[in-house]
Amino acid sequence: MARRFKGLSAFPITPADEAGRVDVEAFSALIERLDVAAVDSVGILGSTGIYMYLTREERRRAIEAAAAILKGRRILMAGVGALRTDEALALARDAEAAGADALLLAPVSYTPLTQEEAYHHFAAVAGATALPLAIYNNPTTTRFTFSDELLVRLAYIPNIRAIKMPLPADSDYAGELARLRPKLSDDFAIGYSGDWGCAEATLAGGDTWYSVIAGLLPVPALQLMRAAQTGNAEEAKRLDAVFQPLWALFREFGSIRVVYAAANTLSLTVSEPPRPLLPLTSAERQRVEEALEALSALETAP
Amino acid sequence: MARRFKGLSAFPITPADEAGRVDVEAFSALIERLDVAAVDSVGILGSTGIYMYLTREERRRAIEAAAAILKGRRILMAGVGALRTDEALALARDAEAAGADALLLAPVSYTPLTQEEAYHHFAAVAGATALPLAIYNNPTTTRFTFSDELLVRLAYIPNIRAIKMPLPADSDYAGELARLRPKLSDDFAIGYSGDWGCAEATLAGGDTWYSVIAGLLPVPALQLMRAAQTGNAEEAKRLDAVFQPLWALFREFGSIRVVYAAANTLSLTVSEPPRPLLPLTSAERQRVEEALEALSALETAP
Repeated sequence: MARRFKGLSAFPITPADEAGRVDVEAFSALIERLDVAAVDSVGILGSTGIYMYLTREERRRAIEAAAAILKGRRILMAGVGALRTDEALALARDAEAAGADALLLAPVSYTPLTQEEAYHHFAAVAGATALPLAIYNNPTTTRFTFSDELLVRLAYIPNIRAIKMPLPADSDYAGELARLRPKLSDDFAIGYSGDWGCAEATLAGGDTWYSVIAGLLPVPALQLMRAAQTGNAEEAKRLDAVFQPLWALFREFGSIRVVYAAANTLSLTVSEPPRPLLPLTSAERQRVEEALEALSALETAP
Repeated sequence: MARRFKGLSAFPITPADEAGRVDVEAFSALIERLDVAAVDSVGILGSTGIYMYLTREERRRAIEAAAAILKGRRILMAGVGALRTDEALALARDAEAAGADALLLAPVSYTPLTQEEAYHHFAAVAGATALPLAIYNNPTTTRFTFSDELLVRLAYIPNIRAIKMPLPADSDYAGELARLRPKLSDDFAIGYSGDWGCAEATLAGGDTWYSVIAGLLPVPALQLMRAAQTGNAEEAKRLDAVFQPLWALFREFGSIRVVYAAANTLSLTVSEPPRPLLPLTSAERQRVEEALEALSALETAP
């Protein structure tokens, strides 16, 4: 089941109006780009897919729309995180009913969770459907730190078959993978998010690139991923350099604000991030445009 | 308007069933204890009042129930935090319509907020009703850090008249108050939460004790607060020592888990914290019982 999680997983934004109603037309057009580009999987309702800012009903509408476009041609993953365990269970069942192939679950919290609480939360959600589930390890948004011991316990749960890791602070991907691989099951995919480090992480043996930019520009992201997956370090480095201005903006403003500005620039949606998040200023948008300009040297349209 | 926020503010839990439906009867009985004890204000739907785990409808039911008991005899504050600005606005209007006298707003987030984003979020919510609003500064749950500059900007907004501060890491309450007072308006109350430091913070000049234990045991909490407010350091220290076993448990397990166990022990509710939060184990509950036992030396029933 871990196979579903391997390769390039493209994470699109979820265009929505000011009241949080998903713009299914704009969203479907984004999904179509990912389908045509033939990414390995489509990860909807991730952090930049604003899952925590959408109601249960709107999340279901988004999953149904994506499933209707992809028709099983690409793996469809959906984020089902919620503050309450019963809510996450309901979202997981909704996702399965709406056509998702896999689930993503982050340990979102208000009151910080203990390791034990996170374990039971994941076990409950993993048991709610027949779908494989990836642990969405995103300490920037969840402020939760998984111990290795907790990961080992979670990997024993049949449906939990992957983890989306943050970039290690010391950039020692090889060291982290060497530490984690022997502890987890063979049928368990370890991948990375944080676009600026993922080529290097894949060259070091990571299974998956959970990619924000692939949700918007799947073609150059696939070029970069394929170079990294085939061990072509030189080509990966050359391509990664073209992305550098964009990665710098991701680090400076957070990828969600930048990717919305980029989607606006490319006329893919007029939506802005949900308030209280603010759109970038025009000066900042100018820098996004320049970063996209640099990328247009690569083939960007599917 | 800052007056509404001064003194002992008692923060009760919100008993609810497993599906998040508020147990109005048990909640009303808790509110009645606070009314009889004559606390200065009642802060419902705070962090231990599980506001982030309740729907808009359930939050309104809780406010209506509290308002029906208090009938204007005590200031009623209500937490209106939400991830989306439009939701927080709706919650603020609901709170006003349901009979709240003041609002509490925390900068809850999924995507970490910038200072500018928090400013606009607070300004929007403060402008939505005629009620005064307290800034709920709780970095343990929100992971947001207010700069002094942001606090100054917020204190210029007419309705924003108080702040609930976390205990300073260095316990230098006097130093913090000396730094903040001149920067903020004269009509602005500075108070503290984190029960174990609040007697000391009040002795150092803090205006308010936003108290979890006062939500359960208002009588001994009032004794402690009155000693601190009148500058009777010796008596405050004597009383605070009786609370020490409970404070130790608050620090070890988080006050929410402990106060639910205490409420169960006192037969005030059978409710547990919302999952994924787990109730304390029986061994841990035994320690809560012992801590309550120590407190029974003080007069505990209103």
